[in-house]
Amino acid sequence: MTVELICVGTELLMGTVVNTNAAFMAERCVALGLDCFYQSVVGDNASRLEESIKQAMGRSDIVILSGGLGPTEDDLTKETAAKVMGKELVMDDKAWKHITSYFEKRGLELTENNRKQAMVPEGSKVLYNKNGTAPGIIMEGDKCRMILLPGPPIELTFLWNEQVEDYLKSLSGDVLMSEMVKICGAGESKVETLLKDLIDAQDNPTIATYAKTGEVDVRVTAKAKDEKECKKLMKPVVKEIKKRLGSKIFTTDESVSLEMAVMQILNENKMTLTTAESITGGMIASRLINVPGASDVIKVGYITYSNKAKRKYLGVKRSTLDKYGAVSEQCAKEMAKGGAAAAKSDVCVAITGIAGPASDASNKDIGLTYIGVSVAGKIKVKEYRFEGNREKIRTAATTAALTFLRHCLLENLTEKTFGE
Amino acid sequence: MTVELICVGTELLMGTVVNTNAAFMAERCVALGLDCFYQSVVGDNASRLEESIKQAMGRSDIVILSGGLGPTEDDLTKETAAKVMGKELVMDDKAWKHITSYFEKRGLELTENNRKQAMVPEGSKVLYNKNGTAPGIIMEGDKCRMILLPGPPIELTFLWNEQVEDYLKSLSGDVLMSEMVKICGAGESKVETLLKDLIDAQDNPTIATYAKTGEVDVRVTAKAKDEKECKKLMKPVVKEIKKRLGSKIFTTDESVSLEMAVMQILNENKMTLTTAESITGGMIASRLINVPGASDVIKVGYITYSNKAKRKYLGVKRSTLDKYGAVSEQCAKEMAKGGAAAAKSDVCVAITGIAGPASDASNKDIGLTYIGVSVAGKIKVKEYRFEGNREKIRTAATTAALTFLRHCLLENLTEKTFGE
Repeated sequence: MTVELICVGTELLMGTVVNTNAAFMAERCVALGLDCFYQSVVGDNASRLEESIKQAMGRSDIVILSGGLGPTEDDLTKETAAKVMGKELVMDDKAWKHITSYFEKRGLELTENNRKQAMVPEGSKVLYNKNGTAPGIIMEGDKCRMILLPGPPIELTFLWNEQVEDYLKSLSGDVLMSEMVKICGAGESKVETLLKDLIDAQDNPTIATYAKTGEVDVRVTAKAKDEKECKKLMKPVVKEIKKRLGSKIFTTDESVSLEMAVMQILNENKMTLTTAESITGGMIASRLINVPGASDVIKVGYITYSNKAKRKYLGVKRSTLDKYGAVSEQCAKEMAKGGAAAAKSDVCVAITGIAGPASDASNKDIGLTYIGVSVAGKIKVKEYRFEGNREKIRTAATTAALTFLRHCLLENLTEKTFGE
Repeated sequence: MTVELICVGTELLMGTVVNTNAAFMAERCVALGLDCFYQSVVGDNASRLEESIKQAMGRSDIVILSGGLGPTEDDLTKETAAKVMGKELVMDDKAWKHITSYFEKRGLELTENNRKQAMVPEGSKVLYNKNGTAPGIIMEGDKCRMILLPGPPIELTFLWNEQVEDYLKSLSGDVLMSEMVKICGAGESKVETLLKDLIDAQDNPTIATYAKTGEVDVRVTAKAKDEKECKKLMKPVVKEIKKRLGSKIFTTDESVSLEMAVMQILNENKMTLTTAESITGGMIASRLINVPGASDVIKVGYITYSNKAKRKYLGVKRSTLDKYGAVSEQCAKEMAKGGAAAAKSDVCVAITGIAGPASDASNKDIGLTYIGVSVAGKIKVKEYRFEGNREKIRTAATTAALTFLRHCLLENLTEKTFGE
């Protein structure tokens, strides 16, 4: 089955907003086994919108439109889509009740315009929207199905997760299930090499890799007559992937991020953590603290950008700085040791490096970075060389620090040495 | 003149990559006074690509294609576009020389495939690419112009800034110039209200607003026979905007970010800064440290997530925490004071708040945040209420802190009190 995405909105055409909705919907459609050959963006213009919808209906089984469901005159998606599908708009009492209570709760005043949002194409399925006022719509024609979704990402993703996903699954006689294997500490090409024979031979389940900064996600998707059969198909493949990638896999739960995986290890083992950051200047702590419950683990973090601060707060020796410089294995080691001691924490992750655009007095390479981790008194340091501009180097260094921190925690907990 | 964007790539269709190229090109086209009615995304498929190009040529004056210029068999954009335009591909010696030297410099081995990248449509203008191997191409037909650009954003933006922008400008007999006015501390609706009569009456120059988190950018664009005339048209409008928004304008330089504007004030006045962060856990320091030269200004930053750390490092009184709680005006004040004293810095920005998803023991509202700023011993605190999930609240709090910090610095330096 083929699906086509049409995102409606002048703000997309003018580049004011980046089209994250298209990426979200596309990724989810692919995971459902739908083929997506076209995406387009049109503005809030009735004739161009009509032309785009007609073209999409002529070449795709499912057309998904997002945006243009607001209360103003400019919002034309529902009216235009209904016209093309040959449907009249009728008042949906439940949608109207939902809208009035949405306004009441927020102490906002309803305007006559808002009634427009409760009008739906006759015979359509209405997707009630907890996060906003515009309901989503599903219309079924003889040859083509059409799904209308509101443009704000928080509303679109909510309706997708709650209702659209199940609807799309129901269209296929088969059941689709997928499992996400998330990997840190190995690049996409390395992961693909390790899994090459599996990827080349893929059929059912399919295997797709997604590269992010310092992370690779592998999605395994099976199609079968029921969930049990899907699980049976996926199991040996996921098992084989786990075997090959071992401890580099930080989760098989799609909703878990690398920082969440790290925090989980610390939480489960009742370990406290401190951060001692130079090059990343707070980025490592900031990512970890984005995990709810961080206050039980991280009591304090140090941003020690100057040599003086490294000495004062982390106890780095002046002689170390003089002899090896701030960007050195020795300094990272003393930062990790001193950070754990100062914060009286079980674990410390420390980082020092050169983000550019210029090097420091030592004239070392831009991107050169040392990450030190102290776990229960044992300290390990690793050297990295990152590429790109200042922001890219700092972002990559942050992910590398979380990866190395996780690695050291696992080594300590299992008392095994993992290959890297 | 109308322009249409076609972004080519399976990774866009599959949602693996978010289409930032489309937003970049669209914004720049709008700034050049070009009308953009359609954007589309197609995969690396010759027949669908050909169909899309023909459709775009039939309805737009300029078609810009990005992606699909790589060395592999999958990359079809140049071949397909040349076919539709009725042009043969010929070897471009300069492009080939460029590619070979690009590989040599990096110690990489050339493959036969790479010769494909040096083939260009006969009679086309070649845009040589310093950041990669694929040159951009401009083809001029009787009715339609076509521009091909490589997909990697770093290459696309480079070629755009260096060559495409001037080419597009040259198509119009007129000269286009624009000025960006960047505003913090006022929402989009407030900015639009303040400028409503100017926006309603806009003709030449045009005025467009762009909302970002905690920031609004206003672009003023004039069209005239020469630069002098453009400047003359823009001057009174920009002057009027400056008059109305006053000190909320942090820059009129498009390349300057809010954190750069703050660092510039600190640098120019030879002031040092420290950060004392609870809710944002390093995000404020991290944004400031992303500005090159930060090491002259920020010697140390404190991430004091626990009450104990607030007491130990910032000298917050136990009685203050007991009586008012950590998320209070009083605590923010003591954090700002104590942070400046501990770091012996001229300035300290301190922040404490509740990011959720749960409140703390005090049961205060999620999103409640206090920001304290100490400048040369004078301390100001402001209360904020942010909405959204944990990440949104922390991001909004970070921008608010930079905005309030800038505000306090300006007040101190001019000894004037600005309205907020």
